[in-house]
Amino acid sequence: MSTRAGVLITGTEVLSGIIADRNGPWLSERLREIGVDAAHIVIVGDRSEDMLAALRFMAAERLDLVVTSGGLGPTADDLTAEIVGRFCGREMVLDPALEERIAEILAPMLARWPGLDPETIRHSNRKQAVIPAGATVLDPVGTAPGLIVTAAQGDGPTVVVLPGPPRELKPMWEMAVRTEAFRAATAGATTYRTRILRLFGIPESAIADTLRAASDAAVDLDALEVTTCLRRGEIEIATRYEPAAEPVYDAFVDFVRGRHADTLFSEDGSTIDEQVAALLRGRTIAVAESCTGGLMAARLTERPGSSAYFKGGLVVYSNQAKVALAGVDPDVIERCGAVSTEVAEALADGAIERLDADLGVGITGIAGPGGATEGKPVGLVCFTVHERDGERITRSVNLPGGRADVRDRATVVAMHLVRRLLLGSPLPEAGAMRA
Amino acid sequence: MSTRAGVLITGTEVLSGIIADRNGPWLSERLREIGVDAAHIVIVGDRSEDMLAALRFMAAERLDLVVTSGGLGPTADDLTAEIVGRFCGREMVLDPALEERIAEILAPMLARWPGLDPETIRHSNRKQAVIPAGATVLDPVGTAPGLIVTAAQGDGPTVVVLPGPPRELKPMWEMAVRTEAFRAATAGATTYRTRILRLFGIPESAIADTLRAASDAAVDLDALEVTTCLRRGEIEIATRYEPAAEPVYDAFVDFVRGRHADTLFSEDGSTIDEQVAALLRGRTIAVAESCTGGLMAARLTERPGSSAYFKGGLVVYSNQAKVALAGVDPDVIERCGAVSTEVAEALADGAIERLDADLGVGITGIAGPGGATEGKPVGLVCFTVHERDGERITRSVNLPGGRADVRDRATVVAMHLVRRLLLGSPLPEAGAMRA
Repeated sequence: MSTRAGVLITGTEVLSGIIADRNGPWLSERLREIGVDAAHIVIVGDRSEDMLAALRFMAAERLDLVVTSGGLGPTADDLTAEIVGRFCGREMVLDPALEERIAEILAPMLARWPGLDPETIRHSNRKQAVIPAGATVLDPVGTAPGLIVTAAQGDGPTVVVLPGPPRELKPMWEMAVRTEAFRAATAGATTYRTRILRLFGIPESAIADTLRAASDAAVDLDALEVTTCLRRGEIEIATRYEPAAEPVYDAFVDFVRGRHADTLFSEDGSTIDEQVAALLRGRTIAVAESCTGGLMAARLTERPGSSAYFKGGLVVYSNQAKVALAGVDPDVIERCGAVSTEVAEALADGAIERLDADLGVGITGIAGPGGATEGKPVGLVCFTVHERDGERITRSVNLPGGRADVRDRATVVAMHLVRRLLLGSPLPEAGAMRA
Repeated sequence: MSTRAGVLITGTEVLSGIIADRNGPWLSERLREIGVDAAHIVIVGDRSEDMLAALRFMAAERLDLVVTSGGLGPTADDLTAEIVGRFCGREMVLDPALEERIAEILAPMLARWPGLDPETIRHSNRKQAVIPAGATVLDPVGTAPGLIVTAAQGDGPTVVVLPGPPRELKPMWEMAVRTEAFRAATAGATTYRTRILRLFGIPESAIADTLRAASDAAVDLDALEVTTCLRRGEIEIATRYEPAAEPVYDAFVDFVRGRHADTLFSEDGSTIDEQVAALLRGRTIAVAESCTGGLMAARLTERPGSSAYFKGGLVVYSNQAKVALAGVDPDVIERCGAVSTEVAEALADGAIERLDADLGVGITGIAGPGGATEGKPVGLVCFTVHERDGERITRSVNLPGGRADVRDRATVVAMHLVRRLLLGSPLPEAGAMRA
């Protein structure tokens, strides 16, 4: 019998879409890594009845573990500790040592906001020291302590109570898994492996077809849990399996590689960003971008250490900026239009020259909703990736979706063109593909 | 008795965190607008038992409506239509008109990917035309039709079945709400109002204190459903109430304004981005940024029509780029360090000059995890906003969190500094605050 868990995300602001939940999927991944299946992620508002109903649903599903996030703050709508106490049949008690600890944590914050009344703040945070009797306390990373609460009677799930802010939740999760109470609840979990393949440049239905063909070719897909999804224009095939099924997975990968060698760009879980970073080792890159408005530069600087290869970027939104900053010939803009492969080429060259880089990326397109002209629809984006005195790739692509989609998707295409150029040139070692 | 709904998001790739769900919160907001309370958002993997358990939980909670997203694709792990059919006690039948419609939709896609075998594709998509008997069909925006399915017997919830990709789900939701079946399920929903206040530059506990004080001052908070949350460094106070409680809400806003006039920047739900866009009318802006790596330019170009005020950006990651592109004096970098208020000022000036803009924004900081030096910790960011021949604001701020947080939060601070400068100068009309 596998160990199963539920994740309960609380907060009216999450339920109503004011803030996006990032904890549910994160917790689900962490659970999976330690061999615990997340059966459900449930999001509820700050209402006792809804929170209790969700906990009881998870108990009825006979889950071994429930992990909650949120509702541990100082305000009255933060109810989680109390509800979990009620669910586990435990009285609420003030933990004086914890109250002291919270006071200690608040001291520097009070110093930072001198206008606040210390007594008021302490009062509004005392509530955070009232916890279900017998709970294991996780030391706060912010001001809210975490809790691990077991059922007072019977065999209900063990509940791990964590705060909502990801910066607090993540380190406190690491604390939680090391506690005695957590280990007791997850004893006997099976370990699975998860592997991801990534493809770029084919439709999802081609993968559905490949899965059927693999099955026909006697690859035992029943031993693998395969899910495919389209994400930012790339297809991800995530497969989970018990360690004994490793040879089946290897046969599956061989089969996919045989059919999709040209579009399969990652077999080891590495992302296009990791691959580009690894391939850029020893070279430098610069960008001149229009419709992406800075997103391509932002993407290339997302990773720590990117200053080793990223020289800089020109966000040349206006034609005037294209000419003045990137050195695009105004006659070319006049003749071919600002959105044209000719301007993309000039932008890539301008990036190389003005930023003294080895590689230049030029991007110009129509993100919409306005700006379409005869023959140039919203979503048309022209790209050039050029290596100084070397290879050059230029492409013109029609990207689907709204403004945000087109801008984001354009950075994906540009990353793949950079990868292609870097792989096509003689410099990179084969080993550089493994980030 | 209020009308209540549950949202069921399906997909192992969403449950496991491979892709982030954006549909749950979006649907919850749409439901709220039409007076339907979302009680829960439940995320399950592509497993029949878990999907059925979640549907039965929602039926047991006596919800009037369930909205599902995902699991309508062509692959075998797409199970939603069948599970919903079973839940509603309805047989699955092939709808020949729908099959024809899907073939029609696939035709241009087949033309775009000439390598694919038409028969295979049609086969893998035929499954999408097999639906619960008696269901209302919503015309596909992608290739997957939506469904509205009512219980064959008894008073179970009506289920609205929508595809997972937001680009398909959103327009199909609009179709769904106009159907007879949907109206019948939501007849009698109360209409609520939702208003949002936004503050910047105070801690969340100060708001908790204000809520208590408002209650003490006889503002009837029981008539309002107030939730507060910290979001990218701003505090949002979202309040929902029945129309009759409008005067209570007005009194509440007066109370908050009285205590937090200096930090309350939005009373009409407008975001800082909307306000800055409105305030920039008739003026132009440019950016020279280092640690934010293009994110500030990307943020200023997020909105359609931003080319009216955004001239361009310089992403000056290296010192060499700061000097060459933004005209920063190398002696200033040498003397004060690349992360200094002096360099932030030079960057703002460089942006104005090189991009011929009215306003310049300069940002330089240490996003981390590396790069900290004596007296300059990770998270230190220096900002200057300067109006040509006019006012100048320079600030140095320590931002919390990891690399991504620091980069994102820095754009928030910069947006607020731009707003302050634009409001402080004599040009803007008071009305420009309403975006």
